[in-house]
Amino acid sequence: MRLALDAARAAAAAGEVPVGAVIVQAGRVVATAGNAPRRLHDPTAHAEIRVIRAAAAALGRERLDDCDLWVTLEPCAMCAGAIAHARIARLYYAAADPKGGAVEHGARIFTQPTCHHRPDVYAGIAEAEAAAILRGFFAERR
Amino acid sequence: MRLALDAARAAAAAGEVPVGAVIVQAGRVVATAGNAPRRLHDPTAHAEIRVIRAAAAALGRERLDDCDLWVTLEPCAMCAGAIAHARIARLYYAAADPKGGAVEHGARIFTQPTCHHRPDVYAGIAEAEAAAILRGFFAERR
Repeated sequence: MRLALDAARAAAAAGEVPVGAVIVQAGRVVATAGNAPRRLHDPTAHAEIRVIRAAAAALGRERLDDCDLWVTLEPCAMCAGAIAHARIARLYYAAADPKGGAVEHGARIFTQPTCHHRPDVYAGIAEAEAAAILRGFFAERR
Repeated sequence: MRLALDAARAAAAAGEVPVGAVIVQAGRVVATAGNAPRRLHDPTAHAEIRVIRAAAAALGRERLDDCDLWVTLEPCAMCAGAIAHARIARLYYAAADPKGGAVEHGARIFTQPTCHHRPDVYAGIAEAEAAAILRGFFAERR
């Protein structure tokens, strides 16, 4: 989660909402990414989508069933759906997102009968630090 | 929808589940894409994600609030989330997808309070033709 928090801080420095993500396979970091929709002109460029695309490209396959994803914020519906499609084994996230999250809030994607893969989910890791990075970002912009 | 059906047929010819999508802005086609997760080693490479990324890149901006999306199958949770993030104005789709759809089935993304943009939705356009393409694809593989 340390690397994911660093990626979130880097996103903030680039003017993006600070969210960072890392994919790990057998203790090895496969890919790291920050949130970048504004910079990339890509509404799908959330940290989770970017890190999944990078890891799948690096491993040369469509499924990441031996990989874990670490992210600093509860994934939204788009990202939770991507996590299911990628067959991510374990999802670790830091801060909960009552406004846009779709794991423990809103659509609760992994509990839907139309969701074909449910990762093991571990929430609240380094939650205070991830939330402070987000709060600092939005406070500066007000 | 004619172009989206063509993109779906092209996807089938490449061994991908046949789904195609088109983004239109003021009567002009901005981008066309087919489903390609296998070929691209990218679990996020559904037709909708690819066409949104292509259109946003072509227009040089993150939001597509003056664009309509045409797709041959009811979007899944990932794609419905991306459609909301992209601020797509109108969503037209052909076949319903009771097993994986997230517009009129499952997570019903656009009805969630955590969904921050709801396109106008028009379902069932060329439904029989889109469903026949999908049925043909799966029948060949059985």
